[in-house]
Amino acid sequence: MRTELSERLGIEHAIFGFTPFPAVAAAITRAGGLGVLGAVRYGSAEELAKELDWMDAHVGGLPYGVDVVMPAKKVENVTVAQVEAMIPEGHRAFVRETLARYGVPDLPEGERAGWRITGWMEEVARSHVDVALEHPIKLLASALGHPPADVVERAHAAGVLVAALAGSARHARHHAEAGLDLVIAQGHEAGGHTGEIGTMVLVPEIVAAVAPLPVLAAGGIGTGAQAAAGIALGAEGVWLGSVWLTVTESELASPVLRAKLLAAGSGDTVRSRALTGKPARQLRTEWTDAWEQPDSPGPLPMPLQGLLVADAVSRIQTYETAELIGTPVGQIVGQMTEERPVAAVMDELTRGFERAVARLDRIAAGRGFADRRVATEGEQS
Amino acid sequence: MRTELSERLGIEHAIFGFTPFPAVAAAITRAGGLGVLGAVRYGSAEELAKELDWMDAHVGGLPYGVDVVMPAKKVENVTVAQVEAMIPEGHRAFVRETLARYGVPDLPEGERAGWRITGWMEEVARSHVDVALEHPIKLLASALGHPPADVVERAHAAGVLVAALAGSARHARHHAEAGLDLVIAQGHEAGGHTGEIGTMVLVPEIVAAVAPLPVLAAGGIGTGAQAAAGIALGAEGVWLGSVWLTVTESELASPVLRAKLLAAGSGDTVRSRALTGKPARQLRTEWTDAWEQPDSPGPLPMPLQGLLVADAVSRIQTYETAELIGTPVGQIVGQMTEERPVAAVMDELTRGFERAVARLDRIAAGRGFADRRVATEGEQS
Repeated sequence: MRTELSERLGIEHAIFGFTPFPAVAAAITRAGGLGVLGAVRYGSAEELAKELDWMDAHVGGLPYGVDVVMPAKKVENVTVAQVEAMIPEGHRAFVRETLARYGVPDLPEGERAGWRITGWMEEVARSHVDVALEHPIKLLASALGHPPADVVERAHAAGVLVAALAGSARHARHHAEAGLDLVIAQGHEAGGHTGEIGTMVLVPEIVAAVAPLPVLAAGGIGTGAQAAAGIALGAEGVWLGSVWLTVTESELASPVLRAKLLAAGSGDTVRSRALTGKPARQLRTEWTDAWEQPDSPGPLPMPLQGLLVADAVSRIQTYETAELIGTPVGQIVGQMTEERPVAAVMDELTRGFERAVARLDRIAAGRGFADRRVATEGEQS
Repeated sequence: MRTELSERLGIEHAIFGFTPFPAVAAAITRAGGLGVLGAVRYGSAEELAKELDWMDAHVGGLPYGVDVVMPAKKVENVTVAQVEAMIPEGHRAFVRETLARYGVPDLPEGERAGWRITGWMEEVARSHVDVALEHPIKLLASALGHPPADVVERAHAAGVLVAALAGSARHARHHAEAGLDLVIAQGHEAGGHTGEIGTMVLVPEIVAAVAPLPVLAAGGIGTGAQAAAGIALGAEGVWLGSVWLTVTESELASPVLRAKLLAAGSGDTVRSRALTGKPARQLRTEWTDAWEQPDSPGPLPMPLQGLLVADAVSRIQTYETAELIGTPVGQIVGQMTEERPVAAVMDELTRGFERAVARLDRIAAGRGFADRRVATEGEQS
């Protein structure tokens, strides 16, 4: 699966794997894709630097990338305490009461939320960029908006391509105008922050909107057949996030959450504002349901909601409260039915892609008979 | 684009076109696809018979199909008057007041709603089936559930394949167990009644669930590149509905509605219960918005909602009230930017499919450089 873009990045397959876990990102890169490490969970530049040093020691000189969050609505020149003060007491009470109803204990004395608001703030995101550019990264990706002009310039000066996620053609055009090198068209099916438009419609729309910039297809892609579909839509590669959550190398701490992910069907996700304040697809849980009930005060806008629930999410994860524990994940969660090493996922992606293309060839040539199962065979293995 | 299924049906391309308009269905069939005429808008078997006679005179002996609506929740042994009596007065008042606010006149004396509830009732659907099986149809398709066992048997006895739409793997398995011959996997992006799962995820899930039954991909498909994506996902053909609304042959009466469709973007649809009582994707209008407002009594369940709004929809369409006029349509409405004859749409579908497959070939062979625009070129023409 080689495109102009994959050649430019020096990777074997045009497969881009986004993950919050360095071991997973490194394994994706070693398997011939481009591992992209999500930086948002690192509250400090030092933590990120340590993980990127580890990456450098484990990718054998192969290319990788970093993903930062630079929200269009910036949180600048304010302290966390000032943002905290903007949260209404009614919302705090709702969180307390919901957790109490499920008997979720407090965090041990001295421990803080693992999920932090700080990664979402411009100054922290900038420190992530500084650290990332001190490492031999090949791609700087950004969610929730494109990086500011000076960051794009610095990345380009360092020979680093800059990408941003887009859920609409309008967003994609903004990215192109900001001088970005590629756009990740992420459909409604995807995990995390998503828009309304399905991948099938969004990818060709964005390809047309930003041409000649390359586009990656994202949302609903976890197998080689789905990768072939994404490429058929005009993409230069595919961007996968959810599928890595349940790989062997995943550092997902909770066995309860891992089991929930492996058991979930494609209909068990919900696009909810409960996690960050913006609609993000995630596992549907009694926690996301609670925010939809008539007694819910409703989620706050970003970044307040993330700050409001940071401790709650951490408590739910620490104590693995089965009814409430969840994570951002896309509709392909229904396909994630067993733990596999990254290399096995990559192998299925590349072989499944080739099988799907071979079947398309036969159908295009008028020889598509008695072989329609070929493209999907082996996906269960 | 030839598959085992297209061979079995005797069609040149595995392209299935659903439309309420006989002239469009006949043109799809003449262009080498399978035109499927929607029967639900015909209040009587006689009307449908007349249109199918017309089809027979205009398809030159080539195959076509008929689509009936057989809701899982049957409306049997009740009169329209009895169903009418179940509608709360508050809902009637909301409809009256909303129409009054936009100055929509009453229908002329003696005229009735063009959109009728009767097509949704089992006895009418059965009369549609009777008429359809008296014509040389090759496919009987069904939305909102599969036809009852006796209908499937009669169709098979007549050499007619039976298909049903499915928005989840569970529905698809029910269809397979009911002895159907193929399943139409219709994703969230699609126009009309849709589920939550995007086409990218739904198609492979249903292919796996009903194997070895063939599956058609539906939802978000309007170009050859999208058709290639649907086939890449394991489908044996593609099912398109929205794209035909704005073809030259379309009998869509209102120029205002046609202009709205041509101007709409992919984000201008909404999945609303306002039309039938079940979530159906349609053009977002001030009418669908009104049903979401705090003063709305909320849509009634099917079939009450359809009956409640039948006259209103007819009035809005007759007088072409610009703010309120809409129609079921999928997210590909954003690609429908100019009126084209059916033959031009079919030509783009088959050529675009071949271009997409040729590009996939090059990418699979490691020669995917400097040609990534090929698959999308010509889509605007």
